[in-house]
Amino acid sequence: MAGLLRPATWGLFSWRGYCSRGTLSAGFVEALKAVVGSPHVSTAAAVREQHGHDESMHRCQPPDAVVWPQDAEQVGRLAALCYGQGVPIIPFGTGTGLEGGVCAVQGGVCINLTRMDRILELNPEDFSVVVEPGVTRKALNTHLRDRGLWFPVDPGADASLCGMAATGASGTNSVRYGTMRDNVLNLEVVLPSGQRLHTAGRGRRFRLGAHLPCVPGPRKSAAGYNLTGLFVGSEGTLGLITAATLRLHPVPEATVAATCAFPTVQAAVDSTVHILQAAVPVARIEFLDEVMMDACNRHSKLNCCVAPTLFLEFHGSEQALAEQVQRTEEIIRHNGGSHFSWAKEAEERSRLWAARHNAWYASLALRPGCKGYSTDVCVPISRLPEILVQTKEDLEAWRLTGTIVGHVGDGNFHCILLVDPEDPEELLRVQAFAEQLGRRALALHGTCTGEHGIGLGKRQLLLEEVGAVGMQTMRQLKATLDPRGLMNPGKVL
Amino acid sequence: MAGLLRPATWGLFSWRGYCSRGTLSAGFVEALKAVVGSPHVSTAAAVREQHGHDESMHRCQPPDAVVWPQDAEQVGRLAALCYGQGVPIIPFGTGTGLEGGVCAVQGGVCINLTRMDRILELNPEDFSVVVEPGVTRKALNTHLRDRGLWFPVDPGADASLCGMAATGASGTNSVRYGTMRDNVLNLEVVLPSGQRLHTAGRGRRFRLGAHLPCVPGPRKSAAGYNLTGLFVGSEGTLGLITAATLRLHPVPEATVAATCAFPTVQAAVDSTVHILQAAVPVARIEFLDEVMMDACNRHSKLNCCVAPTLFLEFHGSEQALAEQVQRTEEIIRHNGGSHFSWAKEAEERSRLWAARHNAWYASLALRPGCKGYSTDVCVPISRLPEILVQTKEDLEAWRLTGTIVGHVGDGNFHCILLVDPEDPEELLRVQAFAEQLGRRALALHGTCTGEHGIGLGKRQLLLEEVGAVGMQTMRQLKATLDPRGLMNPGKVL
Repeated sequence: MAGLLRPATWGLFSWRGYCSRGTLSAGFVEALKAVVGSPHVSTAAAVREQHGHDESMHRCQPPDAVVWPQDAEQVGRLAALCYGQGVPIIPFGTGTGLEGGVCAVQGGVCINLTRMDRILELNPEDFSVVVEPGVTRKALNTHLRDRGLWFPVDPGADASLCGMAATGASGTNSVRYGTMRDNVLNLEVVLPSGQRLHTAGRGRRFRLGAHLPCVPGPRKSAAGYNLTGLFVGSEGTLGLITAATLRLHPVPEATVAATCAFPTVQAAVDSTVHILQAAVPVARIEFLDEVMMDACNRHSKLNCCVAPTLFLEFHGSEQALAEQVQRTEEIIRHNGGSHFSWAKEAEERSRLWAARHNAWYASLALRPGCKGYSTDVCVPISRLPEILVQTKEDLEAWRLTGTIVGHVGDGNFHCILLVDPEDPEELLRVQAFAEQLGRRALALHGTCTGEHGIGLGKRQLLLEEVGAVGMQTMRQLKATLDPRGLMNPGKVL
Repeated sequence: MAGLLRPATWGLFSWRGYCSRGTLSAGFVEALKAVVGSPHVSTAAAVREQHGHDESMHRCQPPDAVVWPQDAEQVGRLAALCYGQGVPIIPFGTGTGLEGGVCAVQGGVCINLTRMDRILELNPEDFSVVVEPGVTRKALNTHLRDRGLWFPVDPGADASLCGMAATGASGTNSVRYGTMRDNVLNLEVVLPSGQRLHTAGRGRRFRLGAHLPCVPGPRKSAAGYNLTGLFVGSEGTLGLITAATLRLHPVPEATVAATCAFPTVQAAVDSTVHILQAAVPVARIEFLDEVMMDACNRHSKLNCCVAPTLFLEFHGSEQALAEQVQRTEEIIRHNGGSHFSWAKEAEERSRLWAARHNAWYASLALRPGCKGYSTDVCVPISRLPEILVQTKEDLEAWRLTGTIVGHVGDGNFHCILLVDPEDPEELLRVQAFAEQLGRRALALHGTCTGEHGIGLGKRQLLLEEVGAVGMQTMRQLKATLDPRGLMNPGKVL
């Protein structure tokens, strides 16, 4: 069957080692240059290597060429050119993915979209903005600073917004503001054929040949199949996202941050459930385990309790915040929480949240010279204590060093594993641990990935998660939209 | 091309007239009985007619037989049987749709899912519930009454929850709680082949042959293509939904309702935008025009201002509500609103909201003997005043009686048109008006349907809305999942 891929992926889980290809003909490279202009095409080894990996541990697999289109029309011509010649197409944003989504496993042309970085239309009254694929989340929020609006989805990296859409990203604010799935209103997608699709309607401006690639769109729709939902999280395997209409939110009048320590994981999760049940509109609720807190203390010269800890943030009016804080404190005390710290001013909040923000680097500092690998399971929140306890036991059983940090309001957590890249035996143990954790999540009705995506590394787990019929359905959709299997091949399926 | 349908749909827009078919062989009917048992199959004319229409004005087109399966396994066998024999399959819930979604335009077998009406699993800590397709929204909320949880999506009718998922329904609460798209976590779908698909993972219980058809699932996921999103809003054209995992919300501690009058439509919409910009977490914000208010006064013996009016509802703690009410009143006064009524107790709130709840019947009472037809456009909120003014002018130009009621926080509104079913010329004018309104919405970057779906009547508008590439993509998806074109044929595409 076309598109059937061997599920084994962890064989790729070895440290980066440059692998040369270079199978494009000179004529084909000239044709690429004819589309985007010579300065916007590169076949230099260093450039290709730079585009052959993301921030994960997947081995670098460089494309044969990198191109930087300037607009969606060029993207369409590039796609049609590659597709016609049977050349794989790999969309590239900021390269900050964590599952090997940009590795050119079959070579091909990497389409780097970062030079398309305009904010095309801001509609404050409609709480929407249209962005090109090179606009990052921080760039957007800087642009919005004086408008009383912001975009809340915040994966750790300053990723491009369209890359976040392709990944189905979320972050610390999703317990209140939702994930990319909830905040993308419309997408312009270049299909492998080069045709341009507008997932939630093209509006009428196109009739007039106007400039706007992606119409603002209404806040909701029941018109036909939800194509936006299909492309959000498709990881570049169905088409190239060349513009996105995003939903914006009003900047909260005031913000309060807090941290507090708990005697057990169960007490921290119980507090989370009770806060949600009490309908306290918490904006962020993050869990850090005691190993993580210890690492943060060392790394950031803090003096926090070395205990399971919650980091919280509340958004609202002054008056609403006072009440949210009071209720939360009652709930947390009732569950045995202690060592509260509350902070209102921006600087103080940053200080308090420093531990959370530096979690990755604090973890890496636990074993200098090591690399980090992050797991990403998500389970129904009631199963969190169980899987967190299992995870800590597994860490011990596999003799691994790992910290735990989680978006506990969503049931999503990451175990950041420290790996000596020179130790292949340890790499194997990390692989086995991560697979076991994925299966534990599935057994608890969870998912192997809450926000990082499937990429290269979790295809076997995806099969186990969605089952044969789910996998067959996804393969059928892929074969329909990408019949030659050239859109970011080897990913997801 | 397979699945290519003529876009003309308004030819069907004539009043109900029973049309007999009856093309199933006796042997096939026996085969249906062998699956579900004789008492659960009917070919009686009255039963078929009852299943040949919904609450819209589309002509009754009865199926050849109606079957009532008892479980998903039977649904699978029925689907495989029909599909193998080339017999169309029409899923049927409560029959409360508004776009002719259940009309058996090619005859076939209507699968009535209302006898599968168990609430299978409630997980209060995870804010989720698993329901069979016959469970209605009111039945679920009655079941949840003492658990401190509720399901907020509320189309007017007491529709089945899986039918609401199939339609992509919403209602008055979606400005705060989202639509079905936002509140479905997982679906069990019987594909035309009879295979069972779990759109967001099947969990592990299936390995053990356990009873639960649809696992609770995590609150978010980035695992593969968003199949849940694809089936929500697919209107029974891709498969039969046999179970759904839904997201629940905590019951608000307190509720306050309000109404107020405005000098103009613009003032009412400006108030709405300002309330949203101020991040007041309004739960409901509904607009009624002066014709609607006049109708309500007459029908419900009220004494409200005959003016553009907002109906509001706020959910939260006592303290939070006081602040929300105060801010809202400030904003509304600033925009020229007046005649405030606030109500806190349940009975008083019902009295205040009586006008909104009885809008449909109050409209019908304007012209006794007439039927109602509801439009359903949705536009970016900033374009609402413009389209509302145009709509009122169009009503006059087309010499039609219509009231306007809208989920103004979403930019979605309905014009309820009164039609004499014996007057074919008036029916044509209603048709022309509705088409014009749909096109006006598209010109303003809106959609022809915010929550009722495409069904039979809006296929031409869907084509105009999503364009040739969008339509081609939807047709490809349909052809992939339903290659013989037998799942609810003639709908959406």
